[in-house]
Amino acid sequence: MSLTSQSNAEPATQGHANVQWGGRFAGGPSQIMQAINASISFDKVMWKQDIEGSLAHAAMLAHVGIISAGDEAAIRQGLADIGQEIESGSFVFSEALEDIHMNIEARLSERVGEAGKRLHTARSRNDQVATDFRLWVRDAIDGLDRQVASLMRALARRAEEHAADPMPGFTHLQTAQPVTFGHHLMAYVEMLARDRGRLADTRRRLNECPLGSAALAGTSFPIDRRMTAGLLHFDRPTANSLDAVSDRDFALEFLSALSIMAMHLSRMAEEIVIWCSSPFSFIRLSDAFTTGSSIMPQKRNPDAAELVRAKTGRMTGSLVGLLTVMKGLPLAYAKDMQEDKEPVFAATDAAALCLAACDGMVRDMTANTQQMRALAGSGYSTATDIADWLVRVLKLPFRTAHHVTGKLVARAEEKNIGLAELSIEDMRAEEPGITEDIYSVLSVDASIASRTSEGGTAPDNVRAQARRWLHALSAEAPAAPEPVAESRP
Amino acid sequence: MSLTSQSNAEPATQGHANVQWGGRFAGGPSQIMQAINASISFDKVMWKQDIEGSLAHAAMLAHVGIISAGDEAAIRQGLADIGQEIESGSFVFSEALEDIHMNIEARLSERVGEAGKRLHTARSRNDQVATDFRLWVRDAIDGLDRQVASLMRALARRAEEHAADPMPGFTHLQTAQPVTFGHHLMAYVEMLARDRGRLADTRRRLNECPLGSAALAGTSFPIDRRMTAGLLHFDRPTANSLDAVSDRDFALEFLSALSIMAMHLSRMAEEIVIWCSSPFSFIRLSDAFTTGSSIMPQKRNPDAAELVRAKTGRMTGSLVGLLTVMKGLPLAYAKDMQEDKEPVFAATDAAALCLAACDGMVRDMTANTQQMRALAGSGYSTATDIADWLVRVLKLPFRTAHHVTGKLVARAEEKNIGLAELSIEDMRAEEPGITEDIYSVLSVDASIASRTSEGGTAPDNVRAQARRWLHALSAEAPAAPEPVAESRP
Amino acid sequence: MSLTSQSNAEPATQGHANVQWGGRFAGGPSQIMQAINASISFDKVMWKQDIEGSLAHAAMLAHVGIISAGDEAAIRQGLADIGQEIESGSFVFSEALEDIHMNIEARLSERVGEAGKRLHTARSRNDQVATDFRLWVRDAIDGLDRQVASLMRALARRAEEHAADPMPGFTHLQTAQPVTFGHHLMAYVEMLARDRGRLADTRRRLNECPLGSAALAGTSFPIDRRMTAGLLHFDRPTANSLDAVSDRDFALEFLSALSIMAMHLSRMAEEIVIWCSSPFSFIRLSDAFTTGSSIMPQKRNPDAAELVRAKTGRMTGSLVGLLTVMKGLPLAYAKDMQEDKEPVFAATDAAALCLAACDGMVRDMTANTQQMRALAGSGYSTATDIADWLVRVLKLPFRTAHHVTGKLVARAEEKNIGLAELSIEDMRAEEPGITEDIYSVLSVDASIASRTSEGGTAPDNVRAQARRWLHALSAEAPAAPEPVAESRP
Amino acid sequence: MSLTSQSNAEPATQGHANVQWGGRFAGGPSQIMQAINASISFDKVMWKQDIEGSLAHAAMLAHVGIISAGDEAAIRQGLADIGQEIESGSFVFSEALEDIHMNIEARLSERVGEAGKRLHTARSRNDQVATDFRLWVRDAIDGLDRQVASLMRALARRAEEHAADPMPGFTHLQTAQPVTFGHHLMAYVEMLARDRGRLADTRRRLNECPLGSAALAGTSFPIDRRMTAGLLHFDRPTANSLDAVSDRDFALEFLSALSIMAMHLSRMAEEIVIWCSSPFSFIRLSDAFTTGSSIMPQKRNPDAAELVRAKTGRMTGSLVGLLTVMKGLPLAYAKDMQEDKEPVFAATDAAALCLAACDGMVRDMTANTQQMRALAGSGYSTATDIADWLVRVLKLPFRTAHHVTGKLVARAEEKNIGLAELSIEDMRAEEPGITEDIYSVLSVDASIASRTSEGGTAPDNVRAQARRWLHALSAEAPAAPEPVAESRP
Repeated sequence: MSLTSQSNAEPATQGHANVQWGGRFAGGPSQIMQAINASISFDKVMWKQDIEGSLAHAAMLAHVGIISAGDEAAIRQGLADIGQEIESGSFVFSEALEDIHMNIEARLSERVGEAGKRLHTARSRNDQVATDFRLWVRDAIDGLDRQVASLMRALARRAEEHAADPMPGFTHLQTAQPVTFGHHLMAYVEMLARDRGRLADTRRRLNECPLGSAALAGTSFPIDRRMTAGLLHFDRPTANSLDAVSDRDFALEFLSALSIMAMHLSRMAEEIVIWCSSPFSFIRLSDAFTTGSSIMPQKRNPDAAELVRAKTGRMTGSLVGLLTVMKGLPLAYAKDMQEDKEPVFAATDAAALCLAACDGMVRDMTANTQQMRALAGSGYSTATDIADWLVRVLKLPFRTAHHVTGKLVARAEEKNIGLAELSIEDMRAEEPGITEDIYSVLSVDASIASRTSEGGTAPDNVRAQARRWLHALSAEAPAAPEPVAESRP
Repeated sequence: MSLTSQSNAEPATQGHANVQWGGRFAGGPSQIMQAINASISFDKVMWKQDIEGSLAHAAMLAHVGIISAGDEAAIRQGLADIGQEIESGSFVFSEALEDIHMNIEARLSERVGEAGKRLHTARSRNDQVATDFRLWVRDAIDGLDRQVASLMRALARRAEEHAADPMPGFTHLQTAQPVTFGHHLMAYVEMLARDRGRLADTRRRLNECPLGSAALAGTSFPIDRRMTAGLLHFDRPTANSLDAVSDRDFALEFLSALSIMAMHLSRMAEEIVIWCSSPFSFIRLSDAFTTGSSIMPQKRNPDAAELVRAKTGRMTGSLVGLLTVMKGLPLAYAKDMQEDKEPVFAATDAAALCLAACDGMVRDMTANTQQMRALAGSGYSTATDIADWLVRVLKLPFRTAHHVTGKLVARAEEKNIGLAELSIEDMRAEEPGITEDIYSVLSVDASIASRTSEGGTAPDNVRAQARRWLHALSAEAPAAPEPVAESRP
Repeated sequence: MSLTSQSNAEPATQGHANVQWGGRFAGGPSQIMQAINASISFDKVMWKQDIEGSLAHAAMLAHVGIISAGDEAAIRQGLADIGQEIESGSFVFSEALEDIHMNIEARLSERVGEAGKRLHTARSRNDQVATDFRLWVRDAIDGLDRQVASLMRALARRAEEHAADPMPGFTHLQTAQPVTFGHHLMAYVEMLARDRGRLADTRRRLNECPLGSAALAGTSFPIDRRMTAGLLHFDRPTANSLDAVSDRDFALEFLSALSIMAMHLSRMAEEIVIWCSSPFSFIRLSDAFTTGSSIMPQKRNPDAAELVRAKTGRMTGSLVGLLTVMKGLPLAYAKDMQEDKEPVFAATDAAALCLAACDGMVRDMTANTQQMRALAGSGYSTATDIADWLVRVLKLPFRTAHHVTGKLVARAEEKNIGLAELSIEDMRAEEPGITEDIYSVLSVDASIASRTSEGGTAPDNVRAQARRWLHALSAEAPAAPEPVAESRP
Repeated sequence: MSLTSQSNAEPATQGHANVQWGGRFAGGPSQIMQAINASISFDKVMWKQDIEGSLAHAAMLAHVGIISAGDEAAIRQGLADIGQEIESGSFVFSEALEDIHMNIEARLSERVGEAGKRLHTARSRNDQVATDFRLWVRDAIDGLDRQVASLMRALARRAEEHAADPMPGFTHLQTAQPVTFGHHLMAYVEMLARDRGRLADTRRRLNECPLGSAALAGTSFPIDRRMTAGLLHFDRPTANSLDAVSDRDFALEFLSALSIMAMHLSRMAEEIVIWCSSPFSFIRLSDAFTTGSSIMPQKRNPDAAELVRAKTGRMTGSLVGLLTVMKGLPLAYAKDMQEDKEPVFAATDAAALCLAACDGMVRDMTANTQQMRALAGSGYSTATDIADWLVRVLKLPFRTAHHVTGKLVARAEEKNIGLAELSIEDMRAEEPGITEDIYSVLSVDASIASRTSEGGTAPDNVRAQARRWLHALSAEAPAAPEPVAESRP
């Protein structure tokens, strides 16, 4: 093999490194490679998962006889001490050691010597990283799941409270039919329940343990992968070593679930912003969730809602970013995959903040029920109730009833009055069969009370549904108030 | 309310409509609104789902007494006839009727008169569209699921065949350790199994029936939503009418699942492109899946693989598109949501094509096992086997063993020979404890055979895993060879 | 080379092709490859560009003597005839001929024989496609640019009309300070001007001719690339043949420009939707741009605005799709690049529709100036005018003036009156230096009239700016009312 | 207005805050709002731009007489001192003061008293932020532009060196025609030149000064916006105050330009990864840009190239994220827009790193010209040269020549020999007119030498083009070696 060329034609002594590479990389190649290789600045949030994984690995190595019981005890003690060092802030992270895994392993060898050097037997950084990252995402899911449940409880509680308070139901942001405020809030409970379902499915699917896949091919050591999987609360070991170290679909599925949830929250946030705008004035957020202006006291900026709406971009951007990274990568591990963590950490942070903000806003907001009720009855919003009455009572075909209703509304509009103010004569002029009974369906309260079909807006429906959810959610005893995954150590 | 202004200051007689609006909209506002409202050009692919939905709705209306048995019979016959008209191509789709729902209902009234006008009782276009679209996505999932299963079978069969054929296992596209070609193929089986899991979860979660939610508030008619849900093979009715007509998270979850699957397929496709490149020459695609040049017979362009790789963009683009559409939409229905279907149809088409292409390529390709074996042994690919031997047999701590191995490889490289060609003296110069036994781990075959850890590349592992999958997949009797969801009528 | 394996282990006689590949691909590999290769279904919209390119190429070949003048005349006549066949609808497109280029060339040979077979000399499909696609995008830009200019004119005209009509200026959708409706509309004129700038830059940068790059390496024929470039109104030939056939950055830049413009239009559309909602009632769209309900006459659904808002997804999705396709593609041409056209065609269609819809809405809408004026003065919206007065007249430091203003507003709020209704004694109680002159800045009209800083909302400013734009835009003589690029033949 | 409801139904004494809100938000609403409002953690990188902006603003205020010369002098000195505090690391950033703007202004008042309180006259945080952010992006563009130019120089230098060294030109990663390595490298120079063009256009378009737009409506103070614009090297003030504070299209255009550039770099990086893979072995990266394994010396992992390829995701993700944020936002400022900075900072960092890494790799790599030459001649890569000879010399129509060539290649393939080894008799058997002259076009060197069309791969072309670029780039005197925009203070 003949390798030609003098490679770098640029004079070496130029001293203008910053002209070519910018100030950040004035130090040349070594600084560039450090920026490329060092992930410690962000992956140190996985320190707890890394220690958990090593504890399980060491226990297994001892169990099958690859290391001695004494070595395992030393490792266990050493890792416990390191955990305390990190928690107390005394641990010194080193960029030269690149990542959290080498930082901890190096410190372990410092503390316990020879035993520390045996820890990495039958393991590689590839399966170690994959394991730690799955543990981290699993913890994040558990934390977010609790937050979603809390938000659902908050919504259901407010929905029960407002189960019978009418508000205009919009399509195209135009008043369409009256619904109740409680019914509207319960729509979000249903959405969030599916979001929880997606998180739960993601958790279940990722809950297989990569540890023991080694670099990419498995190992010749007589390891017991079921034992490590069990100790780490995984359901089972992964089934193919190449797949285990080179796929990140679990992270993508997590980001997808967060992106869809963020979409739901962005809709709630948009509604809050509009509802707080003075022409609407449907709700009032508490001081805790608005910012004001010292000179404009009525200006209550719904910053919290706006930020929830905006964070959708963080979630979608993270998802697209990681999909782009993974597209077309040959197996097995490639350095590209180091770009998997930051989007996941950023999206998790954003999701935790959005859920906390929504939870707080929902609990604190006050509803302006008079304003909502007033608007609920405007715009001939009970016109469909007339059409339904014509079908139900007079047995007109639906399309015919619809046509008659149009004429009645036109008559009312001409006279500039509401439907309930039309005289019975006016009614009969369009459809002789109409009786006084028709007036019973024209009020806002009658309209919402009549929508008793399953899932409809009738107050009893709404109240029952809210209580069903509150009961179900209260059954979930949040035994240990474990904190959400923390992405900053 | 005082509405000022003369609105359109542009002289009406200008005749330069095309200057302002471009040729497509020379007809002015009416043409623009037609382009905005008419969805018949794409939503007609849902004709079958629309008829199914209407049949169930009519049966329920008759069952609870809202329409007569006679009306229901007429509707049933009319819809059956319309189905035949569409299948035979004699149905005339009308743009003026905007969408598939109105096209069919209008034709029904033409055919069966009064009864047809009763069909839309207790129903709105909002719940009808939501129902039809869920049915369509559900059918699409079923079709794609069968295709994924078929591809998994194809991979597992080829994996069984090549369970013991070595190939270089790469990290960073650099030879790392030997694996078997079968093991590599089985990695994709695992990925695809998770893709099927995601599709199945999406199906399960979307399988609730919106019908009966009406426009947004439910209805006052005494409908039986459990009956319609049952007739349409939904698990249950949706629980909140506002949510039912205004969410599209099921479509987003479907697009996420397809995007992740596309990512997996793009990796397989990238590998096929590289493997077909002459310096690699690991596999040869059949004529059926390549295009050539009449004047360059050895040029076998892997077009099918390239298109699979590229279609990832279609899937990701569709997902981002719909996430963007749904971001920040107030409840309930808004016209924005009409933009939900085209991305889903396009992504489904792309996915069906990609799966068919991969299936065909995997079945047809021929492996150049000699070339793969030759490369599997190059580059000191069994160095880690030495390190493991030193740990296992000599009980060196792993990090120490690693260090010794480095020296042995350096010695071999200096002499420009392979590791197996190092003399025992050379070996002992670095580590006196080494015995002749070490040579037993230095061949490619020994290396792969030794990786017997669960999920490792040892041929017996691979063969067993391939058979396990083939057995599981064959147990899925594809009873009725139903076609995949067809997005073009 | 030893190629092993029996390739397709699936029994050939199974007859269940549809089970494995889905109904669409029941025909097996040939059908799959047809679906992969045939682009005629979408690339036929480039027929005009393909003919233009071939005419220029033939003229050049004749000019430098590669073909005879007679051959060129025959080709010219043949292509003219084919153009007429396509326009009249009599041309028969063939899927077997794959794309528009082969369809036209094959038909040419049918019509003019030998001469037709000489047309492809010194040309390859790679440079031909790249040339046609650039021509198409250039035409699309020209059409869209005219539409943007038209929308700017419409906005500026309405802005001039409403230069002095106050409306509440919002931040966080909370009333902040009064502005004029004309000023608000002019903000969009500025945005659109930058959008035009981006389109113009894209056009300028793509305006280099790939023709003559051949397959990837250039050609040995003595062609005159400057001549073809000139005939096709390109500024110059591309400078590197590999780059010319394998980059699609011009399409990405175009999609970026459209995505940013769509973002602007989505903001305008969102505002229109909110302004049309009954609690706001700032504007009223004409019947031409709303849909209603026969039974709810006051429901005027702003479908056009909603669709404009939603189409943002189409633009962003197309951009992400093509970025994904191009990521990590080795040079030169790969089949992946066939996925470049559909996103560009779809985004162009969407952009043309959105611009036409916005243009129409802006021309037709009527402003409810009373409602806007009423809201403009609510919420102590002139509080900052007090602060500015205190700085300007009493020379208080800004932060101090701000503090005093807060106290005055609190006093007014306490008494539940407006700022203008505060007595001079109340004023002086907080700041003794205040004089009667302060009342001159407290009205909405005074507030807006005072904002005379460059770019501020003072009516004279707004009127002048609107006229400046109308003048500049009218200077652009749209000589030939050329239609916008049409993506459907 | 009657505000009902007790808002927060959750017992206040719960102490389970972490269950509901996760550990991060255990402190309740105040902690949430702090997380929402405080941007100081990331916007402090704009400290220099904020000081520049304030200096210009103060100079203008003094010039027009709004503040005294003494106040301006005090402000100037105070800001200079603060700049030194920040640079030296002694400045204490406060989260309570939310952002860099308030941190600096508060410190200024601490240092210079009353004068500091006058600085914010005729300015608002809205126009201040918009100005600072534009200044930052402009600086970032200048830094990146220098890096792109440096990379172009590096590529052109290597291209000149390898102007005549053949390599296989690929389509579909299949050998198509010989090109030179220099020609291939020059393709990237052209791409990068367009990337620079996009950056320059973005810079030009954003180079208008928002300062003086105030909160949203302009100001009543007699400010001189042309003066501040000039002091800050902007071309002019922005023309509409609402637009100035509420658009971020410049950031989106910047992210688009970076995304397209990242796409280009990802292609270069993918090629480097493939070229470094042992079956290809086209190039060898230096130790500085690879990582190895202590035990596998021949494994040279191209980490730098892989990370460049992966960072594409960061750029695309940032772009999609910000497009999502801005979609459908009503004017003017909304809190959503605070999400504009982090994606821009992250993408800038990624771009600077990618450019530095590519620059270093290109300078350092060594080309294996023997290997490239050997592969360039394989696979009948000069078949098209035969076809061209038949057209040029024998005047066959191109399609006929193509057909004859196919037969000649088939004959060679049958005999398992190269084209140059076909006897003249074999040649004449297919086309009697062939003469010995045909052999002159069959070698790799002859083939590349013949591609003399403008932009073709002929070595003289390539050399001239490389020199043209080197000359043009050297003419750009990088006068002051200013560092690239630094996103971490």
